[in-house]
Amino acid sequence: MTTIALDMMGGDFAPLEAVKGVSAFRAENDEDIQLLLIGAEGKISELLNTYLPASSGYTIIHASQVIGMHEHPTRALKEKQQSSIAIGFQLLASGKADAFISAGNTGAMMVGALFSIKAIEGVLRPTIGAYIPRENGKLGLLVDVGLNSDCKPENLTQFATLGSLFAEHILNTPNPKTGLINIGEEEGKGNLLAQAAYPLLKANSQIHFIGNIEGRDILLDKADVMVCDGFTGNVILKLAESMHDLVQRRGIKDDHFDRFNFETYGGVPVLGVSKPVIIGHGISGSSAFKNMINIASRMIRTDLSGKIRESFS
Amino acid sequence: MTTIALDMMGGDFAPLEAVKGVSAFRAENDEDIQLLLIGAEGKISELLNTYLPASSGYTIIHASQVIGMHEHPTRALKEKQQSSIAIGFQLLASGKADAFISAGNTGAMMVGALFSIKAIEGVLRPTIGAYIPRENGKLGLLVDVGLNSDCKPENLTQFATLGSLFAEHILNTPNPKTGLINIGEEEGKGNLLAQAAYPLLKANSQIHFIGNIEGRDILLDKADVMVCDGFTGNVILKLAESMHDLVQRRGIKDDHFDRFNFETYGGVPVLGVSKPVIIGHGISGSSAFKNMINIASRMIRTDLSGKIRESFS
Repeated sequence: MTTIALDMMGGDFAPLEAVKGVSAFRAENDEDIQLLLIGAEGKISELLNTYLPASSGYTIIHASQVIGMHEHPTRALKEKQQSSIAIGFQLLASGKADAFISAGNTGAMMVGALFSIKAIEGVLRPTIGAYIPRENGKLGLLVDVGLNSDCKPENLTQFATLGSLFAEHILNTPNPKTGLINIGEEEGKGNLLAQAAYPLLKANSQIHFIGNIEGRDILLDKADVMVCDGFTGNVILKLAESMHDLVQRRGIKDDHFDRFNFETYGGVPVLGVSKPVIIGHGISGSSAFKNMINIASRMIRTDLSGKIRESFS
Repeated sequence: MTTIALDMMGGDFAPLEAVKGVSAFRAENDEDIQLLLIGAEGKISELLNTYLPASSGYTIIHASQVIGMHEHPTRALKEKQQSSIAIGFQLLASGKADAFISAGNTGAMMVGALFSIKAIEGVLRPTIGAYIPRENGKLGLLVDVGLNSDCKPENLTQFATLGSLFAEHILNTPNPKTGLINIGEEEGKGNLLAQAAYPLLKANSQIHFIGNIEGRDILLDKADVMVCDGFTGNVILKLAESMHDLVQRRGIKDDHFDRFNFETYGGVPVLGVSKPVIIGHGISGSSAFKNMINIASRMIRTDLSGKIRESFS
């Protein structure tokens, strides 16, 4: 049986939206998935009585502490052993959960992912990917979006492998086209990192490398997986997110731009760690929580971690 | 008298759009500006007879060669001494022109700006800025957008000074708010470059530093001058440009998004070199050429180079 741990206290609208997300997930899925709902027991069970009255398939795991959105990640995780995030990683590390999801303190989630459950052997640096909507209705993947702000060329080629496996197995994009984000089309262009990463990507037999892509290609479907350092990726992601706000402010209604509301996707997967971890957006609403549970379930079902392990062995 | 040299052979629609741009500039300006129009004499004078029949105030400077858009910049500039770009820089270096504008080979323009006329003393690396439209109708400035793909912290604080002087004197933004593009708001966030640049920017008495800004702030008016390395800036600029294409493809009509048609701004200034140089977009149309002549004229009139020299002395 599959067991997914969910931090009910993470995000700006916790625990209400988390409970509603669980309820929405249950309404659409009859899979045999056991949910471990971590948080303030009294509050959560009260909300569950309202939003999910006649359901089984979950266990509330009481957490007496919460890590605030602005606490120092490493310190908070160390000092608040009874926090929902710390307990989530304990469940994951001990094998009691197969995946862990939280929309709480992003830094604490990153630190937990890196140090509680460790990287898969051979993975130098795990990475965080984000979805970039395509006009054809599909999703592209941008890696890294902030876990690794300074990168070595070897990191980028590994991100490409990790992102390609995610795109293939979770986003259902067979043989995903992988591009290096750069400031020119030809090999040899770019900063020192991109120049050095290009030949490594070209030699990487695990990916379908299509060469450099530029800023203007990011919103097109030129590449399914787009690789860059976490500084560049984070700036791109937040700029793309802000386009949605701008379109909203301008009073423009458009289906495609609606898909730039990144909140609806739920969260971004941490790739390269031994078990599925999903980091949610602080403003996650119920559909975000539902989607995150779905992605975690798919990551478990397809044994993405096993496939990554195989690739790096 | 002010003399501006213009490469008539640069850009995808040369020399027709360049001629139409000169004509549009003349129609709107009665300033005492002498234009040196560099290119294939026969072709240009024929077009001038059509579009600018009864005008004086210009001299055609014949150039028998053209540097193609895809030629190797350094090599082409060296080998094609009779090209319009090479002649433009000769005119600038010898003092026969006060500014030089071209929408031709970007790399050759950069190489020419750096090596024909040199940097102002004290400027470690000149930079290229680009305009980012604001919802309030104003323009922000993003520096660097590709001249320096790898930067040192000292470069970023100099870009901030150069960008602030341009924003104040050319974009009419007094005491421009200057932000460091980063992946978090607090000091200490970011990659090694941003971490090291922050204290230098904070200590820079020539600018009004407001701290870090994130990807989501780029389209807002949080900062008037936004500083980053040329790799990040180039990706941002091309992504922002592509938003305009996307909006067009979606059939959306919106005044503000129209302003993301970067082509209309003409070109980007090279800042920190001893004389005004403007590098135009390859797809420059007549209004782009007109705007570039206007910006060059304003750079000369306000003695921006002198003000930069003063700042760095």
